[in-house]
Parts: sequence; C-alpha cells; structure tokens
Amino acid sequence: MKILLIGASGTIGTRIYNTFSKKHEVVRASRGGADVAVDITDASSIEKMYQTVSDIDAVICAAGPAKFGALSELTEEDYYVGIRGKMMGQLNLVRIGQKYVNDNGSFTLTTGILAEEPIVGSAAVSLVNGAVNSFAIAAAQELPRGQRINVVCPTVVEDSAEMYADFFPGFDPVPMEKVVNGYVRSVETKINGRIIKIY
Amino acid sequence: MKILLIGASGTIGTRIYNTFSKKHEVVRASRGGADVAVDITDASSIEKMYQTVSDIDAVICAAGPAKFGALSELTEEDYYVGIRGKMMGQLNLVRIGQKYVNDNGSFTLTTGILAEEPIVGSAAVSLVNGAVNSFAIAAAQELPRGQRINVVCPTVVEDSAEMYADFFPGFDPVPMEKVVNGYVRSVETKINGRIIKIY
Repeated sequence: MKILLIGASGTIGTRIYNTFSKKHEVVRASRGGADVAVDITDASSIEKMYQTVSDIDAVICAAGPAKFGALSELTEEDYYVGIRGKMMGQLNLVRIGQKYVNDNGSFTLTTGILAEEPIVGSAAVSLVNGAVNSFAIAAAQELPRGQRINVVCPTVVEDSAEMYADFFPGFDPVPMEKVVNGYVRSVETKINGRIIKIY
Repeated sequence: MKILLIGASGTIGTRIYNTFSKKHEVVRASRGGADVAVDITDASSIEKMYQTVSDIDAVICAAGPAKFGALSELTEEDYYVGIRGKMMGQLNLVRIGQKYVNDNGSFTLTTGILAEEPIVGSAAVSLVNGAVNSFAIAAAQELPRGQRINVVCPTVVEDSAEMYADFFPGFDPVPMEKVVNGYVRSVETKINGRIIKIY
C-alpha cells in the first residue's frame, strides 16, 4: 500500500512511520517537507500536495495544532488556532483528498479523549476533537469510490504520560503500541465511520 | 429569573419563548432586534448585547446557521458558515457572557442528533454540533461564579417532521414539548455540563 502520513515527526507520527514503513511505502508530509511539504492550515497547500503525490491508498494525519488555555482567557483567535489547524486542516485533507485518493482508499484522522472527557484548559481542544469525530461519522456515508474514514481517538500515551501527568490527573496512560494499532486497524481492515477510542 | 433568548423567532425559539415567558422575564435577541439586536456571528455585536441587557440569569441560544450539502460539493467557505454561526456564535455567547451573566446563572446552547447520527448531506452540520457538545462539557468545569452550561440536542421535532421526512429517514420525531422541556431542565435545575439528548 502507498500511505501518505502527515505529521510524521511528532510523538505518535514517528511510531506510526516506524510501524507502517515495515510493510508499506510511506510518504511523509510535513511543514518542513520530509518527503513532501504541506501546511495543513492552507487548503491550497493540501491541494498541491495531492497533485504532487500520486496513487495514494491511505492518508493518515497525526498533525494539527490546537491551543490549551483557561476558559476565562482564551480569545476568539486562540480558538481559531485549532479550528484552522487540527479541525479544518484534517477536514480539508478529506474534503480535497476524496478527489485524489485511490478507489477503496482510506483516511485516518486523529482526535483524543478530550472530546468526551475534558480537563481544565481543554475547551478549545475539546471543541476541535468533538468536531472532527462528528464530521468523520458523517463523511463516512458519502465518500466516493469505496473510500473509508476513521478517527483514532487516544488518551494520554505512556511515552508522554510523565510530562502531562499534572494536566491529566487520573487518566490511565496507554502503551503507544495500542495507539499505533488503532491506525493499523483503520488502514488495514475495512471499517468505516468509526471513532477508534484507545482508552 | 431574567432570561436572554437568542433566536426567539425560530421554530423552537418561539415555543421556548411561550413557555418561559409564563414564569420569567424573557428578553428576545435577534438579528432583526426583537427586544435587542445581535448578530451572533460577530463577537463585538455579542459584547454590545451583553452591555445593553443587564442582570441576566440565563442565556438560551436557539439560533445559529450551518449549511447542509453533499460532501463532494461543500466548499471550505460552506463549512465556515456553520463555524462562524452555530459553532463560534454559540461559543462566543459563553466566552463573552461568562463576564456578564449573574452568579449561578446558566447558558443553554442547541445542537442536534446529527452530532452522532448523521444523514446524507450533514457533514458540515454534524461538525458544528459535535464541536459545541464537546466544548460545553469542557467549559462546564471552568465557568466562574457558579455559572452552568448545558446543551439541548434534539432529533427531528414533530412540528417540522413532514418537511424534513425525506432527509431524516427512520428518525422518530419527538413532540416539541419534550424539546422545550430540555431547556426548562437546563435552566431551572442545577445540572451542569450535560448534553440533554431529546431522542
């Protein structure tokens, strides 16, 4: 399979790359331009990426900025960091990609537990996670040519659990292998319209 | 109680007004300016409304545009109709209102079943409904001075069931009284951070 991975340099993205590249051809896309350059906050940059990389069987996105901050302090612009980034960035990968991705190809997006289990400071992040989850189950009905879409929705992963422990009190960290397996399940089975909760 | 109702002229808003105005003082806000003018897609207009109407115990929003359309045809701008309207419009009522609303006051927003049960053409509407649901459960933890927030999330209501029957096949319509009761429960009990599903 030929897989386009956006956000290959992140904590989860690196592990996704290591796992998938054993069996598949993985093209890495990032702002810096690992194999191909893309700024997912810019629809025209996404369009250009799809015109550059042909014959894609699966798109995996493990990227997308969003801003943490107290409800009393978040500005409208702070919310728009996540709206243009993790939300419309991922949505545009699907909206534009549906024209380019191969028959029976798949999209796998990333959200997180904050969509339904918030922490203090997560209002703007919960917002975009909830948005992408609901978008995906709706889009799943309408993608053309047998294309599928799923979302991997993890809780805190063990690799970064220590760093985030104060912000996620009482959240059980999961092994990174379980999270990566969510992406494998999305890409290599035929499920569609699923929120794959890793928690 | 003094209640600020945004969207009082809509199908649901009219019934909310009729019910609440029997027991409470209800100030109606709309673009046309029933009692007070507001354009919820414009944060400065919301700020001005809160500066005009003082001593608010409860904010109810039954307004917010969003666009239906096929996944293959929705443009980025089509998604932004809902993002600026039903999503950031409602969010800004809370973001800005937290400074103005009385101690122990409440916010009641409106989403809908499409957040978790999509129909064909609902991708942009499902997106904003899911976003507002997740925002509300996060915001509920952080509102100041005893303020609360809930979301009423109805399915198709009987009043408009015939009109929408072709778009919502197999969706059981609910009586409008049940929907209005969701708003009553949010405002007059002490629940917080709830998605009040009317289906």
